[in-house]
Amino acid sequence: MEPQWTEKDFLSCSGSTKLAREMAAAAPFADLDHAVQYARDIWYNKVDVKGWLEAFAAHPEIGATSKPISQWSKEEQSTAMATSGGSTMQELFEWNARYKEKFGFVFLICASGRGSPEILAELKRRFVNRPIVELEAAAEEEMKIIELRLKKLFDSKLRTSSSQTA
Amino acid sequence: MEPQWTEKDFLSCSGSTKLAREMAAAAPFADLDHAVQYARDIWYNKVDVKGWLEAFAAHPEIGATSKPISQWSKEEQSTAMATSGGSTMQELFEWNARYKEKFGFVFLICASGRGSPEILAELKRRFVNRPIVELEAAAEEEMKIIELRLKKLFDSKLRTSSSQTA
Repeated sequence: MEPQWTEKDFLSCSGSTKLAREMAAAAPFADLDHAVQYARDIWYNKVDVKGWLEAFAAHPEIGATSKPISQWSKEEQSTAMATSGGSTMQELFEWNARYKEKFGFVFLICASGRGSPEILAELKRRFVNRPIVELEAAAEEEMKIIELRLKKLFDSKLRTSSSQTA
Repeated sequence: MEPQWTEKDFLSCSGSTKLAREMAAAAPFADLDHAVQYARDIWYNKVDVKGWLEAFAAHPEIGATSKPISQWSKEEQSTAMATSGGSTMQELFEWNARYKEKFGFVFLICASGRGSPEILAELKRRFVNRPIVELEAAAEEEMKIIELRLKKLFDSKLRTSSSQTA
């Protein structure tokens, strides 16, 4: 049976409602590559700046424990969590707060496979950016996260689909 | 008597509350050039993306009649108004709506001295931009407007100040 693709599926890849709506309207895609290309075009050319901020706001802060965090975010941050000593974690918290104060959104990085010292170094490096430069850097990280999550979405859909036909 | 500079004075130059607050805190300035340089630094390096959008939202749409429009906006748009035939005006309205739909904020241009056919051509030229490119273009236009208005603010303060000492 052909898997069904809903707006909600795509919202699990990115908090941009425009992106989710356009992806659901265009689905099904021939394959993952096609979906990624399509998402890339929408993300960079059609989603406006408020839509980018909407997507950023859907992310937990690195190391956040105060709000519910999705399984996918947990997986992406698992290396960071495993490699974080208490003092690095404390510093990451402080720099995150400073970052949010300066830029108005949480520090975004495709954390998958990155240890927390590396994430902290990257946060400090990017902190000196002008706000618009950082907006674009964050949007590029978000696109990497979208790609990873589209892959997970495809995998889970295909699993569901093959178990239904089995 | 030394003129007093308030946050409200600087809010008449730009709708960014952060910029107004920082300018009022740093005032008085040695001269207009110093104020412009200071504003430029705050605008490009300190005001975040939401602050840019806040400033953009304080502008009337070109040719708008539905909401109160400041004297300074009227002066800046006076050439556009004087040169606009009915059909150019109608087209400007339509393209403005299209622009706002795509980018999420009003089309911003330092209208001072520009006729409406020129503004319309510029709107169409910029319409094809990616949202982030257009964000930066709008921020540069806003900075030109801030410069013009700082000059007006200085002129009016000096007039008030000299009439008080006279």
